[in-house]
Amino acid sequence: MFQKPRGTRDFTPEEMRKRRIIENKMRKVIESYNYKEILTPTFESFDLIAKKTGEEIRKQLFVFKDHGNREMALRPELTSPVARFYINELKMLPKPLKIYYFANCFRYERPQAGRYREFWQMGCELIGSKSPLADAEVLNLAIEGLKSINMDFEVHIGHLGVLRGVFDEMGLDVETQNKIRHLIDKEDIDGLEKFLNEEIGEEKKDVIFKVLEYRGGREILEKVKEDLKDYPKAIEAVENLEEILDFVRHDYVINLGIARGLDYYTGMVFEIYGRREGARQVCGGGRYDNLIETFGGEATPAVGFAYGFDRIMLNIEDFEVEEEAILITPVKKDKELIKVCLDIADTLRKNNKIVEVELMGRRLNKALDYANTKGIKKVIIVGSKELNEGKVTLKDMVSGEQKLVDINKISGYL
Amino acid sequence: MFQKPRGTRDFTPEEMRKRRIIENKMRKVIESYNYKEILTPTFESFDLIAKKTGEEIRKQLFVFKDHGNREMALRPELTSPVARFYINELKMLPKPLKIYYFANCFRYERPQAGRYREFWQMGCELIGSKSPLADAEVLNLAIEGLKSINMDFEVHIGHLGVLRGVFDEMGLDVETQNKIRHLIDKEDIDGLEKFLNEEIGEEKKDVIFKVLEYRGGREILEKVKEDLKDYPKAIEAVENLEEILDFVRHDYVINLGIARGLDYYTGMVFEIYGRREGARQVCGGGRYDNLIETFGGEATPAVGFAYGFDRIMLNIEDFEVEEEAILITPVKKDKELIKVCLDIADTLRKNNKIVEVELMGRRLNKALDYANTKGIKKVIIVGSKELNEGKVTLKDMVSGEQKLVDINKISGYL
Repeated sequence: MFQKPRGTRDFTPEEMRKRRIIENKMRKVIESYNYKEILTPTFESFDLIAKKTGEEIRKQLFVFKDHGNREMALRPELTSPVARFYINELKMLPKPLKIYYFANCFRYERPQAGRYREFWQMGCELIGSKSPLADAEVLNLAIEGLKSINMDFEVHIGHLGVLRGVFDEMGLDVETQNKIRHLIDKEDIDGLEKFLNEEIGEEKKDVIFKVLEYRGGREILEKVKEDLKDYPKAIEAVENLEEILDFVRHDYVINLGIARGLDYYTGMVFEIYGRREGARQVCGGGRYDNLIETFGGEATPAVGFAYGFDRIMLNIEDFEVEEEAILITPVKKDKELIKVCLDIADTLRKNNKIVEVELMGRRLNKALDYANTKGIKKVIIVGSKELNEGKVTLKDMVSGEQKLVDINKISGYL
Repeated sequence: MFQKPRGTRDFTPEEMRKRRIIENKMRKVIESYNYKEILTPTFESFDLIAKKTGEEIRKQLFVFKDHGNREMALRPELTSPVARFYINELKMLPKPLKIYYFANCFRYERPQAGRYREFWQMGCELIGSKSPLADAEVLNLAIEGLKSINMDFEVHIGHLGVLRGVFDEMGLDVETQNKIRHLIDKEDIDGLEKFLNEEIGEEKKDVIFKVLEYRGGREILEKVKEDLKDYPKAIEAVENLEEILDFVRHDYVINLGIARGLDYYTGMVFEIYGRREGARQVCGGGRYDNLIETFGGEATPAVGFAYGFDRIMLNIEDFEVEEEAILITPVKKDKELIKVCLDIADTLRKNNKIVEVELMGRRLNKALDYANTKGIKKVIIVGSKELNEGKVTLKDMVSGEQKLVDINKISGYL
């Protein structure tokens, strides 16, 4: 017997319906801000995918050669493909460019709860504005999307300019900054402490650790500015963050310890955590003003985020999806009665109803059993005697009631 | 500069919007028949994909090894994955099982107009009923889907049982049948003629060619039955086709020359052709009662079809998509005015409007230029003087008119 590939999923009708309901609520919010959907190919050249992160990402990728011997990879995320698309074509569009995607991504993960080798991301990119209002819009939008699906979450906002400002003022060379960055990314606190003690001394180490540990409400920023008064570029970053926060219309926690993707974010960064167990981070984003340049385009400011759609699905309360269909069945297997069933079905479908016609040649009681099993609540029964009077029987499967209804007026009873 | 992989496409906001509009109309029809969406992984084991068609399909596939050295392929179609999913899980659901998918597929094609290496299929499968009414439903549904998007098309309906009945009655062995089948599939008429003359003789050849050439309205079936009266199994197939056609509610051409996928279809088959040049076949389907057994499941009757979504997009008239967004801009860059803009935007979005707030810090005339360029038809301008009277300015970009509107009553003017 054939099985699906390890770490992938098949989605049943019920699962798919729930996913589409959530997806569509979130799309609606994104579109209400006038972000427009785009789509890029499912695979890209390996070089494009590796550009941002380096060769080491290979072991997390599905890589293959096409028949022209070009090395391709299934996309692990969409920011790089979108940057490519922007440079190839979209840069001609008016600014700001507001785009979004909902697409599957692929990573070779060790199978575990909530981690899949094929997973979905929904993301927004706002390209062309360096205004703090743009950062705030992206934050507000990410939050509104989650509110629309009644998720319980917490928003953490930071700013990489603070840490960068401190590094620069300390005169750390690029290599040292990279090393520190990687230790932070790996959350290797002991390694970081050791490295900083050895390389830059305890005093500077304490400043860096202090930055990473700032966490609190808006009031904390006053303290940060006081503490970092000798680091003017860090202060500038704090002021930029304050300007952004002026326009953020939701609760948040300031967390300067967020050091996500230090090699590609340049300013404000944020993470959103679900409050249910097992699937913590559901969204991440920030400003990345250097990214388009990295891929060979003109320097262009950009800010954006991506939701981990599968993690969101794990973070919402499960819900029931009702069966909306109506079943139409002839009282017995008879070609003319079946044709009447088809007529009624066509009419109702044109009136936006979901309608099944009995397709198994079953007897009436079996057809009603099927309706019960599927949770179908209304059945229209077509018989010759009633038809002669222009009527059909409408059976309510919940109450068990049935009544004769004028064939031209059925819609009104459904 | 990085480029997209050969034979693949990026979809711009405008292209994507048009595709979604068409997709959603077709989904709506499919869902009105109570087909429910499912989804399978983007890649499958190579063995599954090759099962139906044999090893020779490898050269048309994107094949790769996962990190466990298992050979995988990007799916070239969804019938095999759906059969696998059915056997693994869906067989537990009540019959008939009515499912659909809209998903990307991958084939290594030589790039040419209308052929892409990543393309989309939308397909329906009706599993569990062997009734002619089931065949008819699938035909009616495929046709209604195309009607919903105003496509101009022609439906050809055939039945593989006719040819099979003739083969069986002639006593042709499996190998000979396979050979004939492949020549028909390749549309190699000369090769077929030569092979039949040599292997089974001119008389039988003439019968087979006659079957392949039947084409016309319903009346032609009387002639077929007369001509094939010595082939009782072929007559049975014609009678099955007649029962199906009794329930088909649209124009069609009977075409017994349709010999699509003779190795997997078993009964009624159909093809739908668009009438615009360059992209002829847009849909194909039929009955395949042996397929699920082939994949290791219990023998289960099934009938279904798939649309080639990209070919459909080439077959419809192009259409304009209007920009629906409203732009809100402060009369000048001022934090308090911007906050009012955000308030208005939030309110309107909650009233199902699509709203942009000016994000570039532009002056008013530049913001209006942007609205013009984007085709935005209404702009709300927020100024302090008007605000003091509880009003904002609403500018109609088409007529150029502008008027003062009560801030709480804007919705009514949009």
